[in-house]
Amino acid sequence: MSNSNLTLLTDLYQLTMMQGYFLAGMGSRRAIFDLFYRENPNGNGFAVCAGLEQAMEYIDNLRFNEDELDYLRSLNLFNPDFLRFLGEFRFSGDMWGIAEGAVIFPGEPLIRISAPIIEAQLIETALLNIINHQCLIATKAARVCHAAQGDAVIEFGLRRAQGPDAGIFGARAAIIGGCVATSNVLAGMKFDIPVRGTHAHSWIMSFPDELTAFREYFKAFPNSAILLVDTYDTLRSGLPNAIRVFNEMRDGGHHLENYGIRLDSGDLAYISKEARRMLDAAGHERAIISASCDLDEYLIQSLKVQGTKISVWGVGTSMITSRGQSAFGGVYKLSAIEDGAGKMTPKMKLSEDPGKITNPGIKKLVRIFDSNTNKIRADLITLIDEEIDIDKNLTIFDPLATWKKMTMISGNYFVKEMLIPIYRGGQRVYDSPNVMKIREHCLREQETLWDEHRRLDNPHIMPVDLSQQLYDLKQSMILEARNG
Amino acid sequence: MSNSNLTLLTDLYQLTMMQGYFLAGMGSRRAIFDLFYRENPNGNGFAVCAGLEQAMEYIDNLRFNEDELDYLRSLNLFNPDFLRFLGEFRFSGDMWGIAEGAVIFPGEPLIRISAPIIEAQLIETALLNIINHQCLIATKAARVCHAAQGDAVIEFGLRRAQGPDAGIFGARAAIIGGCVATSNVLAGMKFDIPVRGTHAHSWIMSFPDELTAFREYFKAFPNSAILLVDTYDTLRSGLPNAIRVFNEMRDGGHHLENYGIRLDSGDLAYISKEARRMLDAAGHERAIISASCDLDEYLIQSLKVQGTKISVWGVGTSMITSRGQSAFGGVYKLSAIEDGAGKMTPKMKLSEDPGKITNPGIKKLVRIFDSNTNKIRADLITLIDEEIDIDKNLTIFDPLATWKKMTMISGNYFVKEMLIPIYRGGQRVYDSPNVMKIREHCLREQETLWDEHRRLDNPHIMPVDLSQQLYDLKQSMILEARNG
Repeated sequence: MSNSNLTLLTDLYQLTMMQGYFLAGMGSRRAIFDLFYRENPNGNGFAVCAGLEQAMEYIDNLRFNEDELDYLRSLNLFNPDFLRFLGEFRFSGDMWGIAEGAVIFPGEPLIRISAPIIEAQLIETALLNIINHQCLIATKAARVCHAAQGDAVIEFGLRRAQGPDAGIFGARAAIIGGCVATSNVLAGMKFDIPVRGTHAHSWIMSFPDELTAFREYFKAFPNSAILLVDTYDTLRSGLPNAIRVFNEMRDGGHHLENYGIRLDSGDLAYISKEARRMLDAAGHERAIISASCDLDEYLIQSLKVQGTKISVWGVGTSMITSRGQSAFGGVYKLSAIEDGAGKMTPKMKLSEDPGKITNPGIKKLVRIFDSNTNKIRADLITLIDEEIDIDKNLTIFDPLATWKKMTMISGNYFVKEMLIPIYRGGQRVYDSPNVMKIREHCLREQETLWDEHRRLDNPHIMPVDLSQQLYDLKQSMILEARNG
Repeated sequence: MSNSNLTLLTDLYQLTMMQGYFLAGMGSRRAIFDLFYRENPNGNGFAVCAGLEQAMEYIDNLRFNEDELDYLRSLNLFNPDFLRFLGEFRFSGDMWGIAEGAVIFPGEPLIRISAPIIEAQLIETALLNIINHQCLIATKAARVCHAAQGDAVIEFGLRRAQGPDAGIFGARAAIIGGCVATSNVLAGMKFDIPVRGTHAHSWIMSFPDELTAFREYFKAFPNSAILLVDTYDTLRSGLPNAIRVFNEMRDGGHHLENYGIRLDSGDLAYISKEARRMLDAAGHERAIISASCDLDEYLIQSLKVQGTKISVWGVGTSMITSRGQSAFGGVYKLSAIEDGAGKMTPKMKLSEDPGKITNPGIKKLVRIFDSNTNKIRADLITLIDEEIDIDKNLTIFDPLATWKKMTMISGNYFVKEMLIPIYRGGQRVYDSPNVMKIREHCLREQETLWDEHRRLDNPHIMPVDLSQQLYDLKQSMILEARNG
């Protein structure tokens, strides 16, 4: 990330509001903010939660150093007392979050902050930036990997990512979403994730001919040679030359492993089948056919339908930038604040669009599973002190169409609280698993969905309902606001 | 950017190719690479060149430290001699580039590298990452600012950017493309660009009522209060309350300046006109109406057509992620390499698609201007040692449809070489202007285009032609390859 210290990675209005709270003597009032999103990206049936580890790094390093205070002073907006306060600033609040790799749904809190409002306000922008980015790419990667039906997908997008961090943290998110490796060496080092890559067209073009280039590559990397065969003519030049070199290696007694070809242009359905036929005919049934030609989930799905022989997919631009939907619409909304008398007061943002009215109060998220299948039945947002008695039946309802009800029969369901403690009183109480563990968790999480939630288009919509208590609170606040 | 040292921000295949060149004894052969792009983003008629300063920072800091070498060693791919070589690695090559802020067109070299191939290969990925990102956002910003017809456009996208760097360098690029300020404080500090912002809905919601919230905001910032009026009901609550507070301030003898309202939802055409009427009726003709509601160039254009009274535009997600086209397709292609005998040999990547065949040889880019209007007539790619004699007429032709010719009459045209020296022998010979200077340059550059090149859709296409010598070289190499 840009610096270990990203304290100024915020919108100016957070700092002006902070000064406003400071001057009004309200800075220490405790506020509750929920981070949530409103729509799954790319029409998916779920999103993948990602970015928590970087959010923690950001919070752990929150402090204003002298250079930053000097800069703020130079803006002629800020009061000396407020700047002195910033010099002492530390995050002292509480934070809960959903573990990375979890499947998540629109409207539910992914992160809940409980902190003095002056602190909670500062961190809004960077939290959203980090979580929005990684959720976006992890979700796109899950789509691409779903289309690849268990084949290896490798993240190849660094050169087209929206800046260095987008490449680095995008690679991390892509692994969480299901990719097996990345081409990005810095991401590999930083997150201990597998890196892959062999050579480009420039390698071939640097030699007098393709055959020499292939031989030289094998000489340098006899145990990991995936030859790029489309520089001149895939079927008439690239493949015959590759097979000739494979044969030379084999006939010279070399045990070929982890070898094959990469296709980067042309009709991948046709060429991959021809390539398989030619490789098999030469006794190279184990040679891998990989491809990397502006791929996305739809192209991979189409190639699968056409019976392609590609089994390793290098996916670049489309995944690392989430082509089709370039932003994850996470927002961060005030849901309660301490009033002047120290009492927590629920808060709500109104809108003419019923789906955009926020959920007031201090809340938690409960996931309801079917005991027989271990699949998710629904998610339920409740007030913080509500308990679900699984020895009783549980009826839930759609908050926008309340006649849509569903009853869970006791014994046939179990529940899980999704928000886990991350900070308490400014102290971190959670350590992030490593990225490959998060990836495994994400694969298991996707198993809690029916196939109908996972299809690329028009997926089944997961219910995210409100408890009766929360629903009643919200309705009463809407009515009060409309009448007031 | 992620670290001052981004040396490992590269694709693994760059490092494997480097080892291949090293082991083949070819590492020091001089190679020429061109960085260019094939299509303007979002259907624009041009792109804006941006990112050179960060590309230079990257190259200036290129070196492998011990941690990085240890990591590479741990991959069990690399030879100890090669790793020792990396320990000593410095960029020793030459680089030319087009100045930031320039308007650029598909197919022309934006950067030319001449360096030992082992060096030129390493830097491909990071150069593309940096240039692709900033050209993308600067071009999008130019579109948004064009639609705003000279109104102030402020970059508001940090929370939706694809990671911290995308927010920071995206803000930089947005300023280059024409924005007047950003909400991103870290970008403001880093690049000495104006920052703006006042307050969010959470400010309003933190007080018992909207009127109190407005009063408190004015108290904290009497000289820069843009009040957000849509938290409860824009026309029935927000505006009357804002006007009441404006009146109180004015009647209390405060000289109101830099004040007004911000709209963040609803029908902006209608509401902005109503707001103007209400503000004017209360004597606040100078109060600014700003807006920030998921805006993009098309929405702004539509509002302008409808006679909106908005004059300050806060643009977020759509600009910072270049919604509609999330990547700039820059590529980096070998165009010549020293052969074993030390002679430079032109190189070319073939393709079945004539537009995708690369241009061979060591080249430069000449821009041809009309002397009467100072507008660009065409860009011409020539071999490096060609000179244009402006005392003679100049006939150029479309390389794909050679019957499309254009003759410049001596005295009616002048030319400019676009690629300027950035590094010589590894030494930087160019200093970047500051960002606000680059922004001015970009505004002047856009004046070298006809309106027909600048419209948002179906713009006039700028000719990017090849000199006769370059065309002949390319044709002969194509024929040789097809026959060979």
